[in-house]
Amino acid sequence: MNRLVPQSQAAMRQRNLSRVLHTLAAEGPLSRAAVASRIGLTRAAVSTLVDELLRGGLLVEQGPGRSGAVGRPGTALLPTDRGPCGVGAEIGVDHLAVCVMDLRGTVRARLTARTRNRDSDPGQVLDRLAGLLERLAAEADGMGLLPAGLAVAVPGLVARDATTVVRAPNLGWRGVDLAGRLPQDLGPLTVDNEASLGALAELWAGGLSPVPDSFVHVSAEIGIGAAVVVEGQLLRGVHGFAGELGHVPVRPDGRRCTCGARGCLEAYAGEEAVLRAAGLDPGPGVRVDALTVRCESGDRAALQAVRQAGSALGIALAGAVNLLDPSRVVLGGALAGLAPWLLPPLSRELARRTAVAAEGRPTPVPVTVSRIGPDGPLLGAASSVVRTALDTPGTFLNGR
Amino acid sequence: MNRLVPQSQAAMRQRNLSRVLHTLAAEGPLSRAAVASRIGLTRAAVSTLVDELLRGGLLVEQGPGRSGAVGRPGTALLPTDRGPCGVGAEIGVDHLAVCVMDLRGTVRARLTARTRNRDSDPGQVLDRLAGLLERLAAEADGMGLLPAGLAVAVPGLVARDATTVVRAPNLGWRGVDLAGRLPQDLGPLTVDNEASLGALAELWAGGLSPVPDSFVHVSAEIGIGAAVVVEGQLLRGVHGFAGELGHVPVRPDGRRCTCGARGCLEAYAGEEAVLRAAGLDPGPGVRVDALTVRCESGDRAALQAVRQAGSALGIALAGAVNLLDPSRVVLGGALAGLAPWLLPPLSRELARRTAVAAEGRPTPVPVTVSRIGPDGPLLGAASSVVRTALDTPGTFLNGR
Repeated sequence: MNRLVPQSQAAMRQRNLSRVLHTLAAEGPLSRAAVASRIGLTRAAVSTLVDELLRGGLLVEQGPGRSGAVGRPGTALLPTDRGPCGVGAEIGVDHLAVCVMDLRGTVRARLTARTRNRDSDPGQVLDRLAGLLERLAAEADGMGLLPAGLAVAVPGLVARDATTVVRAPNLGWRGVDLAGRLPQDLGPLTVDNEASLGALAELWAGGLSPVPDSFVHVSAEIGIGAAVVVEGQLLRGVHGFAGELGHVPVRPDGRRCTCGARGCLEAYAGEEAVLRAAGLDPGPGVRVDALTVRCESGDRAALQAVRQAGSALGIALAGAVNLLDPSRVVLGGALAGLAPWLLPPLSRELARRTAVAAEGRPTPVPVTVSRIGPDGPLLGAASSVVRTALDTPGTFLNGR
Repeated sequence: MNRLVPQSQAAMRQRNLSRVLHTLAAEGPLSRAAVASRIGLTRAAVSTLVDELLRGGLLVEQGPGRSGAVGRPGTALLPTDRGPCGVGAEIGVDHLAVCVMDLRGTVRARLTARTRNRDSDPGQVLDRLAGLLERLAAEADGMGLLPAGLAVAVPGLVARDATTVVRAPNLGWRGVDLAGRLPQDLGPLTVDNEASLGALAELWAGGLSPVPDSFVHVSAEIGIGAAVVVEGQLLRGVHGFAGELGHVPVRPDGRRCTCGARGCLEAYAGEEAVLRAAGLDPGPGVRVDALTVRCESGDRAALQAVRQAGSALGIALAGAVNLLDPSRVVLGGALAGLAPWLLPPLSRELARRTAVAAEGRPTPVPVTVSRIGPDGPLLGAASSVVRTALDTPGTFLNGR
């Protein structure tokens, strides 16, 4: 058995380096003593780990820290704001966005372009995105930041290889592999569904909670996606296609959906469906904002359309809550702006249809509006790279 | 960091003892060399572990083994058929069952009593169950088996304390704590939902698969429960209430359900609903068997009722498949006997309503009938104790 011990020691050292780094990214600046008490290691052990991270340039020291320990004040530690960083990108239906985030989780640069990506030629869109990324990389370089990876959020299903967009109906894309089509010097590429990345951003915004969160995160835009987070882990599904809330049946014999089936949630609560039901033509530029204005002014057709969408969301989410028993439901995406009118019918359906398991849990399951807003997918993308860097500090500590 | 090493070595030793034991329980008899190759340790390391398990009485040796290695034939090893065992119990709506399972997974004794537990006094039912368990314990004792725990399957929601039945509508129970009400000498008590234990039995029957399975397991009886297994782990939910497929809305404005809501799956595909729709009075003793006979004889009302149940199951499962992207759906419980008539409409709805993510996966998601049948919850209960014993062999190796 002895031959396994060195391997395990090395793995444990990596894990402990990562725990120090994660703690400082989430709660820094902190003294060595404060880090030690938070992660349950001795001060001596933490000092060794910190020295290694300082030598490797992943941590920096700042004047006297806020440690309440007796004796000389500890020096406050913080992840570097130079060195490894995450690059995030988002391909939306009518915009492209890119950003760079340092190890502290701060967005250091961000570029956005309004473009029409609906029914688009993937080559053109990717060329434009590559241009934005090159400009962003120059910005990062100027700040001493070194991209450790690129994550791209797309409104569609992504294969488990994490580079191929299997299907993005609102872009009109099918089977588009992004590998090799974006700048190669940003580190490893991963592509992910926007709803998944939005949910991860929401999860990570919650900080290092002692009890990992379990929730259903709804991204209601033109398409309706969801992400199921179970004890802090995103449930991806066997093919990577979990979270297709938009095609959960809510009126089995009802409206025809773009997918060919009848009565899908998206046919009642997707952005276009709601705009149409409110008597608005969902042409280019006509968005949820217009609906918000009408709801505020008391427009009956608009209010009725939003109420119907809220009920439909409530029916679909009642199914999800019965199946998954999450601690809460989080509403993100464009429709979150309609929360004042959407939430009452949504919560009513949810309460009524999840009563059987009501004992011992809040009824209805709390529904909250995303803390992050429409930036969720972009921030989730950049964060996913930063978190990978924090998980594997050894990658940046060569030869030590 | 050094202070952590001994702890980790001890934990690793425990894990390796457990891996040896699990491998032999799943695939034994095997030689030491065969175990070593399966778990990726050296033969010397495995010999040390095996010696410890032999001394502790958890393994036994049998004549020459089937090892293909050169040199003297290895001795074949197997978990003991004496010593630690699991006790399972099931409280059904009209029966009680108990069994004892050895570390090889063999059911060594089993007792069943037909009783009416619907709208029952929990005290009376638990007294009767205690009597059965005492007789079973005497049988186990006579075979040299030592109960390492008792797991009880119930048709209802169980609190995360794992001893309190929060609500079992078909027993008429609410807030019944089983702790201290069953024989105390069988080891730790755990109570679990029958659908969850049925799914675990199904999972474990699949053996030690290299890719942990992800599936939705439906237990269709008087109530309809489900269990969601993700990469080999049962998804329990924040309050322990996940899997309430029976109250997923399938016809939001449709039939009133016993839970108070309209259009729940259970109101269309629960055993009583189907019997009623087929023109049968769902009184005591009238069960799915009667329906099977009628379907076989071509009775139109029966066929129509089962088709409607199949569609409703398909609609609810389409929601589950869209959300979870499992590799398959498994149909267990009493309604599994109606599979020849239930599956075609079920699969049709499922195919139609999960088409959006059809690329790259089989369409429709395969629906299979449980390999285990109605014994799932009882076997799952006993297995859960046996698996805990295999996970923690140190408990039985005192002072070594």
